[in-house]
Amino acid sequence: MTTPSSLEPAIVRIGERLAQLSAGLSPSLFDSHWWSHSAINLAMKDASFKTRLFHFIDVLSVIQDDERVVSLAEEYFGRSGSELFGLQWGLKAVASTGIGARLAGKSIRKQIEHMARTFIAGASIEEAVPVLSQLWKDGRASSVDLLGEATISELEADLYRDQCLNALDELGQAANTWPSTSLLERDHLGPIPRVQLSLKISALSSRLDPIDPDGSYASVAARLRPLIDRAQSLAAGLIFDMEQAETKNLILEIFKRLLAEPAYRSYPYAGLALQAYHRETEQDVEDVLAWVRTRGVPITIRLVKGAYWDSDTVRYRQAGWPVPLFDHKADTDINYERLIPLLFRHADLIRPAFGTHNLRTLAAIEAHAESLGLAPESREYQMIFGMAEPFQQAMVKLGRRVRLYTPAGRLLPGMAYLVRRLLENTSNESFLQKEYVESQPLARLLAPPAVPANVHRPSVSAPQMFSNEPHSDFSQAKVREAMQAAIASVRSHLGRRWEAGGADRALTGPVLESRNPSQPDEIVVHGPSASVSDLDTVIERALKQWSAWRQKAPEDRSEILRKAASEMSRRRYELAAWEIFEVGKPWRDADADVAEAIDFLRYYAGEMDRLAQPARVGTRPGELNQLTYGPRGMTAVIAPWNFPLAIPTGMVSAALVTGNPVLFKPSERSSGLGVLLTDMLIGAGVPAGCLTCLPGGPEIGQALVTHPDVVTIAFTGSKAAGLRILSEASRVRPGQHMVKRVIAEMGGKNAIIVDETADLDEAIAGVMASFSGYAGQKCSACSRVIVHRAVYDSFVARLREAVLSVEVGDPSQPSTRVGPVIDTRAQASIQRYIALGLEEGRLLVQRTVDQNGYFIGPTVFVDIQPHHRLAQEEIFGPVLAVMKADSFVDAIRVANGTDYALTGGVYARSPSSLATAREEFDVGNLYLNRPITGALVSRQPFGGHRFSGMGAKAGGEDYLPQFMIARVISENTLRRGFESTQ
Amino acid sequence: MTTPSSLEPAIVRIGERLAQLSAGLSPSLFDSHWWSHSAINLAMKDASFKTRLFHFIDVLSVIQDDERVVSLAEEYFGRSGSELFGLQWGLKAVASTGIGARLAGKSIRKQIEHMARTFIAGASIEEAVPVLSQLWKDGRASSVDLLGEATISELEADLYRDQCLNALDELGQAANTWPSTSLLERDHLGPIPRVQLSLKISALSSRLDPIDPDGSYASVAARLRPLIDRAQSLAAGLIFDMEQAETKNLILEIFKRLLAEPAYRSYPYAGLALQAYHRETEQDVEDVLAWVRTRGVPITIRLVKGAYWDSDTVRYRQAGWPVPLFDHKADTDINYERLIPLLFRHADLIRPAFGTHNLRTLAAIEAHAESLGLAPESREYQMIFGMAEPFQQAMVKLGRRVRLYTPAGRLLPGMAYLVRRLLENTSNESFLQKEYVESQPLARLLAPPAVPANVHRPSVSAPQMFSNEPHSDFSQAKVREAMQAAIASVRSHLGRRWEAGGADRALTGPVLESRNPSQPDEIVVHGPSASVSDLDTVIERALKQWSAWRQKAPEDRSEILRKAASEMSRRRYELAAWEIFEVGKPWRDADADVAEAIDFLRYYAGEMDRLAQPARVGTRPGELNQLTYGPRGMTAVIAPWNFPLAIPTGMVSAALVTGNPVLFKPSERSSGLGVLLTDMLIGAGVPAGCLTCLPGGPEIGQALVTHPDVVTIAFTGSKAAGLRILSEASRVRPGQHMVKRVIAEMGGKNAIIVDETADLDEAIAGVMASFSGYAGQKCSACSRVIVHRAVYDSFVARLREAVLSVEVGDPSQPSTRVGPVIDTRAQASIQRYIALGLEEGRLLVQRTVDQNGYFIGPTVFVDIQPHHRLAQEEIFGPVLAVMKADSFVDAIRVANGTDYALTGGVYARSPSSLATAREEFDVGNLYLNRPITGALVSRQPFGGHRFSGMGAKAGGEDYLPQFMIARVISENTLRRGFESTQ
Repeated sequence: MTTPSSLEPAIVRIGERLAQLSAGLSPSLFDSHWWSHSAINLAMKDASFKTRLFHFIDVLSVIQDDERVVSLAEEYFGRSGSELFGLQWGLKAVASTGIGARLAGKSIRKQIEHMARTFIAGASIEEAVPVLSQLWKDGRASSVDLLGEATISELEADLYRDQCLNALDELGQAANTWPSTSLLERDHLGPIPRVQLSLKISALSSRLDPIDPDGSYASVAARLRPLIDRAQSLAAGLIFDMEQAETKNLILEIFKRLLAEPAYRSYPYAGLALQAYHRETEQDVEDVLAWVRTRGVPITIRLVKGAYWDSDTVRYRQAGWPVPLFDHKADTDINYERLIPLLFRHADLIRPAFGTHNLRTLAAIEAHAESLGLAPESREYQMIFGMAEPFQQAMVKLGRRVRLYTPAGRLLPGMAYLVRRLLENTSNESFLQKEYVESQPLARLLAPPAVPANVHRPSVSAPQMFSNEPHSDFSQAKVREAMQAAIASVRSHLGRRWEAGGADRALTGPVLESRNPSQPDEIVVHGPSASVSDLDTVIERALKQWSAWRQKAPEDRSEILRKAASEMSRRRYELAAWEIFEVGKPWRDADADVAEAIDFLRYYAGEMDRLAQPARVGTRPGELNQLTYGPRGMTAVIAPWNFPLAIPTGMVSAALVTGNPVLFKPSERSSGLGVLLTDMLIGAGVPAGCLTCLPGGPEIGQALVTHPDVVTIAFTGSKAAGLRILSEASRVRPGQHMVKRVIAEMGGKNAIIVDETADLDEAIAGVMASFSGYAGQKCSACSRVIVHRAVYDSFVARLREAVLSVEVGDPSQPSTRVGPVIDTRAQASIQRYIALGLEEGRLLVQRTVDQNGYFIGPTVFVDIQPHHRLAQEEIFGPVLAVMKADSFVDAIRVANGTDYALTGGVYARSPSSLATAREEFDVGNLYLNRPITGALVSRQPFGGHRFSGMGAKAGGEDYLPQFMIARVISENTLRRGFESTQ
Repeated sequence: MTTPSSLEPAIVRIGERLAQLSAGLSPSLFDSHWWSHSAINLAMKDASFKTRLFHFIDVLSVIQDDERVVSLAEEYFGRSGSELFGLQWGLKAVASTGIGARLAGKSIRKQIEHMARTFIAGASIEEAVPVLSQLWKDGRASSVDLLGEATISELEADLYRDQCLNALDELGQAANTWPSTSLLERDHLGPIPRVQLSLKISALSSRLDPIDPDGSYASVAARLRPLIDRAQSLAAGLIFDMEQAETKNLILEIFKRLLAEPAYRSYPYAGLALQAYHRETEQDVEDVLAWVRTRGVPITIRLVKGAYWDSDTVRYRQAGWPVPLFDHKADTDINYERLIPLLFRHADLIRPAFGTHNLRTLAAIEAHAESLGLAPESREYQMIFGMAEPFQQAMVKLGRRVRLYTPAGRLLPGMAYLVRRLLENTSNESFLQKEYVESQPLARLLAPPAVPANVHRPSVSAPQMFSNEPHSDFSQAKVREAMQAAIASVRSHLGRRWEAGGADRALTGPVLESRNPSQPDEIVVHGPSASVSDLDTVIERALKQWSAWRQKAPEDRSEILRKAASEMSRRRYELAAWEIFEVGKPWRDADADVAEAIDFLRYYAGEMDRLAQPARVGTRPGELNQLTYGPRGMTAVIAPWNFPLAIPTGMVSAALVTGNPVLFKPSERSSGLGVLLTDMLIGAGVPAGCLTCLPGGPEIGQALVTHPDVVTIAFTGSKAAGLRILSEASRVRPGQHMVKRVIAEMGGKNAIIVDETADLDEAIAGVMASFSGYAGQKCSACSRVIVHRAVYDSFVARLREAVLSVEVGDPSQPSTRVGPVIDTRAQASIQRYIALGLEEGRLLVQRTVDQNGYFIGPTVFVDIQPHHRLAQEEIFGPVLAVMKADSFVDAIRVANGTDYALTGGVYARSPSSLATAREEFDVGNLYLNRPITGALVSRQPFGGHRFSGMGAKAGGEDYLPQFMIARVISENTLRRGFESTQ
């Protein structure tokens, strides 16, 4: 149901009236004589300039040094910068003197701050109060939003709670002095408070995570209760803002659960924002209405269009999840209009508040109200401080209650807010842009929203293109339930014995067993291992199977991989659950490992299909030259335990799909998953002899490497083991007929650089995820962070709090971010490094875990020097060395100063720093402004150099050819004087 | 000047008259009721079928076994074969019984033979004589062409000469009995003989080669003289046929030189075919006319359109040479008409003979003659036996002299001729096709020739595409002269001392010298070598230069390579001459080596340009993932002497262009060229310290391999040295910071398989070139030939004669095909293998060279068994082991039965054998129906596996990345909620 066409005449009439009332006024952003006028106009014409401008505004606030402001302006705008900022002389010239640079820097900063004040009422609640008071006197109410940094620790969550309490107090006190204004103090259900606060729920906990609704509730509710207590006592309103789509259901749940608690059940001034751009909002309104009916006390519903469309759409598409928002702006407008009568019809249960700056939408609301015969006080209009002032005025003149969403807070953390507002105002789809910039005719502005017929709707990628298996969306209840069920099921099978794994007769080695690292007295799985004397038989059998396997059509081999992928996909929660128990992976890590295994299967299948087509080289007549690939031969895969499914799946499937027979030795720490993988591949059609799982220790690996029939060795593991293999494999032994090839992925000593231009919210979250994820047991894990001295102190202080806030514990619990390390040997080794760290540096923070199990809490050392062992050696645990750098270039030098070159990361916004990193940061996988773990197949082909690895990147185009020999076949196509290519 | 339009009415009138005279007749190929009718019709409709049909006809003649005929028919035509050959039941069914297969085979063979007889007058001259007699009685003269195999030995050249002598005798005898026919026995210059023989000049020598006009003349003239003697005594005519464009000038020279000899100067019945499709023919006619004037006795000029258009055009384009023939059939027709009056105007000097089957051309000749008032006897019409009979008849009816070009000879060697005729008759551009198949209206058939406006003219390849440096076209006099001048110049500089090679101070090793392998007392060049103690300084200097070099824009590095390529191209004859003296390469080999060096420079420059563009991987929003490449670091290049410019250029330039510093150790046997190469690269802009030439022996190589700062080793050489390097490089040494990478190209034990379906003319030539080229000192050289038992005896017999015919000697002589081996050590080693061959097998033939110098004549052993050392070990000299195989599959098994897998070749026409080879012949570079040496950069990327090499193919897309590390840079492009990829 959309707005009935019978309402259109009323909409046009009301719209024209509002336009009249707003005539002669102009939004300050478009009208003022100050600097931003020309900058914003230019941004609207030039998308590249707009990006640079907003990036510059974004980074500006963190820069302490005025000279650096000037150099950054130059990085972003080149010489045009001086014109842009109305400076009399060029930036280059300005910067040539220190004093000139400082003056210019101050001037630039001033201009941006001026712009910010258009949208932010004050740098603190105290500074904002006079502005709010003036608004009240001018007939507009307000809802205050306290700007803050992202909350990345419990300390910061407490701080936000305290700021909110303080704001309620300050506002309550000020509001007492405001003149009485009946329009603003009553609605159709009775009196309403002068004070209203909008709450950012995600700021009230560092643990808000939809994977763990109960834990999230406990954490957030604990900080919400004192706020509601205070609001109740002051008779102030509290509105829960809605944020990213991923947390929508969680916030709805928290709202309903908390406000149903006996203490808050009768609080009448609670409210909730709902976003019309979300496809589920109509259902959400219905659910909330049902809940309000049982609660018995009305709430406010603030209907907004939604402010996270761009980022949510990008992030869902990036994750490969269906986007839950409407594709097109007009869809959102249509949905909004559809929701108006729904809210009005239940005005006995709710106080409808309409957030919009769109003339058409305003008119539609009024038209609906008119047709339903509602009094003016039945509805509230909410607009944003500093935006669309002409409409604010018009609505006030029309005698409607207008409330301004009004941010207060320091400029620095307010930049994200400012940029969002600027984006909104300059978007091509913005109503303000249409009216005030493009000056579209009123009739068109008031026409019903309609999606243009030719609009491009993002389509799913073509079926032949590789597409990553999406990670599980744990914000969905049914996904969480499936995972819980799988964990319960696997738990009930613990202690089982493996048997098959492609070996047609019993292996003769000793029994191996895997224990649950969180619960070492629990045997997860056990079974026979291979002995060296088993190898000859196994290899003979594999060689016998080989010719049929290599002669199979490549597409048939690819098909087997795809079949195995489907089976893994079907069993993904079960497999993830086995990982939780056998190697101690937390939910998301385990889930990602299974998804990556599926990716490897599908990606290498597609790669084989590509490589199976002979490529023609050269186009001269008289000859046909084709490049084709064939298998190298017997391949040994020696795999690690830390990605117990993904890494062996990648190596084994690459060797298999290219036509080789495979002997697969899983790590003795994850034999169970190795056997599972083998059985799945054989189940999908790999002939048994072509793939044999050989659980066992290093002696089996050694025997495989030196066996004369083994010609390719794919290894992932430590540097020491890898170098030993490389050396052993290069010695030719009797009976050997081919140079052995070793594909080795080894260790890393990976660094993240935090530049002075970094976004610290993101940098700290990224460092946390990169160093503590899976307890640091990823070859890609961060183990050094090199911080620019300008931000060192604040980085270290916030990092400490973040470490103190992370959940460490049993990985079968969804709340757990950091689980145990793999075994007692690993635990002891890491502890030795921690002891060393105490000697070499200074302990910043260490988490301890009071549980049975191989736990090592995240531990951070500061004052580490580049030559320290803590800065040079791979630890493979959640231990981080923090180092200080004098400059970005210095940081790069330190980062490059190890024997490893695997992953690296940079948090920086300066274009020049990012460019330097691209050129100079010498690692296999470099990540800019994101965590350094979690490389995805095909999108981030993975692998390093120096002593980090030897061979092409896994999950990339060059990987499969390593398992093959390339043949160029050149045919003379000229026969008896005629060219016979067909 | 083309045909004046004033002649058009006459042409139409005469053409209509001729059409009338030919009406009711049809060429036998299109009209007969026999089998070929349907086959030819189908071929004209279906290009793929046509190719298969002609291939089948081509191979058929060599098949002895009727059952094999049936299986081949099935390979080519599948089940439709039975229908095609009018067999009552399917071929499968037929073949299911041996008797059935033999019957079907005979039937198929009969049908093809029948078809052949349309164009071939008899299987021998004796068989042809009655046919020719009958033609004479029907009013048509003849010019006999003796069909034969390609002449690949002097014995075969003698045989052809003897056949020609015999034919003259037989024809002379028979012609005496023919009735007198004045039309055929007189022309405008007087009496003409009844007997005429067309000579294939290339059949009169196995050494006919435009690179060596004098040697070619000596060889051909020696066999022509007895022929002219006989023709003079019998008063018979001799016409020199014109063949491939490459030999045109040579044949013209031979004709003019021989017929100016006092003994032959007055011989009045000599003649020459000239091809209207050649752009130079008008000039050639003028030259010949001038020559005739001085000689004083007329000759016959047979003007033809030209029969090698397809193959010449393909081969010139394949070679990268400008095609000397007209692009389009109509151009040829225009040129032909242009030449008619030229010939007529000089009818006092020549007897014009017109070879054409085109009604328009015939009418044009008549119209020209009419307009010039020439008597009918002034011209002769030559047509081909079996072709366009209606026009033959029409011309006879018109009272013109018609002579048929009439082949005689065995079907087997006649197949090439038959296929050419079939092609001509079925070509889309054929006049016969237009008239008799398409039935175009007469007016269109008689219209002046015109190139369609929209015709596609082959364009030169786009400038950005890589295109191989063409080899020198030694059929051009100016090219031969340039080479001779360069040889003379280098000879005058022999004994010079090298100095630079990028080393900034004197190297401290002993003096090295290179001696001319053909003349060991001649020092070619000498100079200082490196000592191990020089390395640290050199490496330190290189590391210092490195950062500037790696930071240089990749396109600037590419540009330096291109500049070096231009310099090499400018100095190509000089460089080739140095190769002749320093390593004993014959002209073509030396020239090819320089061209390949140029190719490597340009190809790798282009590859770097390609790789310098970061490649985006993945297209998800919110992230930008780019794959980029950077240099690995210090690279040692350890090069061989056998391609003293090309191979080091490839390795050095690949390492340099990718941004690495290079230490280059040329072979101590070719240090001079190593220094030359280094100086050219430095001259083109490589900073001196970035490239240092280190002449020296194995101890320098060893020191480079084990040096901790050397991270990449590019090696080409022996298996033993390569495996030692692989093993040494894999041991990590103190101070080393990276796993070393070794790119090793090692030896080969390369086999050519000669199938029963092989074209032996090509197989023998290919084996000869592959095993004896550069005295077998190519890693790609053939050292085993595995021959199907069905053709073993004839292959061995002809091969022996071919070996006996090849020119062995001083490579500075253009005639030399096989020069010396590199030095006395090599000579001794090869001699040991020859001694071994005498024990293991049976000597088929051994050439000896009675010259000072390190010569080893080409030597062939037969009866070699697969397990023999001669069948397993690389010899690196002109020694060939011949082995017999029972079947093609058996041959493949034997070919694959060594530790090497570098090159391999197959001569076969059976589609199934070729397909089997593609699947099963396990070598890096497989060549079908062509020699197995001479891989070209980009078109045949080169390299092997097993113990033949480790690494990507040189001259291919995967080569450069070996010198680089790959980095994936993943940027989070979502900032402050908006996607900022630009």
